[in-house]
Amino acid sequence: MNWNLARRAEKMNPSVIREILKVTERPGIISFAGGLPSPKTFPVAEFAEACARVLKDDGPGALQYAASEGYGPLREMVAAQLPWSVDPQQVLITTGSQQGLDLVAKVLIDEGSRVLVETPTYLGALQAFMPMEPKVVGVDSDDEGIVVDDLPRKAGSGADKARFLYLLPNFQNPTGRTMTEARRAALSARAAELGVPIAEDNPYGDLWFDAPPAAPLTARNPDGCVYLGSFSKVLAPGLRLGFIVAPKALHPKLLQAKQAADLHSPGFNQRMVAEVMKDGFLDRHVPTIRALYKSQRDAMLAALSREMKGLDVQWNTPAGGMFLWARLPEGMDAVQLLPHAVERNVAFVPGAAFYAQDGDARTLRLSFVTASVDEINTGVAALAAAIREQLARQTPQRLAA
Amino acid sequence: MNWNLARRAEKMNPSVIREILKVTERPGIISFAGGLPSPKTFPVAEFAEACARVLKDDGPGALQYAASEGYGPLREMVAAQLPWSVDPQQVLITTGSQQGLDLVAKVLIDEGSRVLVETPTYLGALQAFMPMEPKVVGVDSDDEGIVVDDLPRKAGSGADKARFLYLLPNFQNPTGRTMTEARRAALSARAAELGVPIAEDNPYGDLWFDAPPAAPLTARNPDGCVYLGSFSKVLAPGLRLGFIVAPKALHPKLLQAKQAADLHSPGFNQRMVAEVMKDGFLDRHVPTIRALYKSQRDAMLAALSREMKGLDVQWNTPAGGMFLWARLPEGMDAVQLLPHAVERNVAFVPGAAFYAQDGDARTLRLSFVTASVDEINTGVAALAAAIREQLARQTPQRLAA
Repeated sequence: MNWNLARRAEKMNPSVIREILKVTERPGIISFAGGLPSPKTFPVAEFAEACARVLKDDGPGALQYAASEGYGPLREMVAAQLPWSVDPQQVLITTGSQQGLDLVAKVLIDEGSRVLVETPTYLGALQAFMPMEPKVVGVDSDDEGIVVDDLPRKAGSGADKARFLYLLPNFQNPTGRTMTEARRAALSARAAELGVPIAEDNPYGDLWFDAPPAAPLTARNPDGCVYLGSFSKVLAPGLRLGFIVAPKALHPKLLQAKQAADLHSPGFNQRMVAEVMKDGFLDRHVPTIRALYKSQRDAMLAALSREMKGLDVQWNTPAGGMFLWARLPEGMDAVQLLPHAVERNVAFVPGAAFYAQDGDARTLRLSFVTASVDEINTGVAALAAAIREQLARQTPQRLAA
Repeated sequence: MNWNLARRAEKMNPSVIREILKVTERPGIISFAGGLPSPKTFPVAEFAEACARVLKDDGPGALQYAASEGYGPLREMVAAQLPWSVDPQQVLITTGSQQGLDLVAKVLIDEGSRVLVETPTYLGALQAFMPMEPKVVGVDSDDEGIVVDDLPRKAGSGADKARFLYLLPNFQNPTGRTMTEARRAALSARAAELGVPIAEDNPYGDLWFDAPPAAPLTARNPDGCVYLGSFSKVLAPGLRLGFIVAPKALHPKLLQAKQAADLHSPGFNQRMVAEVMKDGFLDRHVPTIRALYKSQRDAMLAALSREMKGLDVQWNTPAGGMFLWARLPEGMDAVQLLPHAVERNVAFVPGAAFYAQDGDARTLRLSFVTASVDEINTGVAALAAAIREQLARQTPQRLAA
């Protein structure tokens, strides 16, 4: 049988990096690669209680088909916790915020549509947008995110006008960087002026270390932004729950795309999460995640300072979230380094994968939240050794060339 | 802000029928409209035990991000229960079988691709395919499903060759009809000859009343079919779990589409279902669903015989599943009847919504599984009264015309 695949499917190819990273599931590998929250932060006991209560109070209701919009009380809790005025009717519960990206793509992207992203950006968003076949264009970005003055050059016009600008303002994946208040204000104004809507993805915003980040871009222009949130980082990813807050122009379309995609997100899980959250649990729980992740970030920063001494390796100091961004010495390539690091039982994600165009081959993403402090120390030392070894190998090659 | 929507989103409009059916959530309405399994069949106690055990045995594992393919033991159980030789590696766990349709569409449909469906067919499939903008073509169908001799006329050729034929062979939604062994054998051979792959959707196959249906089409030609299954009808829909069994030519592409769509289906739910299923629970549980649904079907058949006496209303006798298909007297329109039925506190779905082209306005779908036997009796009597009232209204109009 000759299956005739869709054009988009021809472009879906297994990533070389993913293949290498499969070995990171091997016991003994210290992984800075995954975007996995620390399992220590999962409120297992609270979930166990919530499951029992949900099934006891209304088991048949929790297990039946449910509304595509999501579970009413959960939508209300989401609306209430956001720092701008949100009508619960604007909230759409999604199967993880990854699904939010799929729905936004379906509702806003035609084949060839211009879509703007940060440089670099979240790889999963590029994957979610891809089936709709957009033309993804990277906007210049610095340590504070999008460079506002590059936006007019990239916004396009007429039929080629950007459908939206996708960004993660807080503790970005992959770089860990955060937009300042001034940058947000300037970007919000410029995007509105250019008529470019913003898709604001904020899975990490609650995970700040010393001070909360500035207000979301959506709070500044709710009709010009669609906002994506997640329960994966503050409760647990294995329930696959996130949400979209959308303006009236988009909500009904997103809802219909949602219905076609999976009818609704699991009602049982939505009730569990609402049950866990109902008495202000997050206000007690999230500070413990912040404290843990901050101490892990500090451990990684200390290990990097110690182990990378004498190497021209650069890294940043994220103010929250899960990731740190590093850059190898000139001439090195993180994709080439990866198998050697894995030989030394440490893994990371090469940064080039996160760029819409012209990836910086020297960059890499390091997660500081999944490994323990001991593992961070061992892993960073192993990474430094792999870098030293690669540099030593490269030098004679260069001399020979 | 002017949001520039994708072309496909312009076509996403709230259905008039859905708006009417919203009132069916009003207390006191007897609904034959929904496709809701009877909540009496949900194994609430078993789920409660399974939740507790899953969280106790490996809470952090159950709540963490997981593989896009699905939970290994669940994939093995799915493969083992299917009536042909299936490698667990071919199984992809999906967020309900609705998501399976979304993934199949992404991997197989380009804009304008020809896709063949039964007449009538599952509305949710039409909705799932729509975002990929296919040209959906109905193949003539009779009481046994697809009319094999119409397939060559509809298959198309060259660039317009059908990407696949979508069908539900067992207790179809919406008609309740089932393909005979002879029809399956003939269709399987003809589709293979024409080189048309089959997407076989089988959410209801286990819900047979007197004898199991014939073997799946996929069992006859595993490389030429993609098979979709669901846990919604045999366990509970509120967990949103289904699966795809795909040949090697498709599986890696479906997996990548899955990853982009929602990363993975909730790992917690997958472990719960595996825990409930592990000691042959379905072999004890499913027969109780069959017995209940058979008695409800019998009640509806008896009520129809009793209440529709003297009216030229036709209906079939489904051999399983959840739905019965009826046809109103000549000149009547089920969409026009619906608000009058709702006034009398009974609801159904007009059949026209289920056709890719040229819907039969006289048809309607009646679910016999959600309402109780008493409600079935009251509801069918109310439906007959609404039909009689409409006929009485129409007669003078016709005389006047």
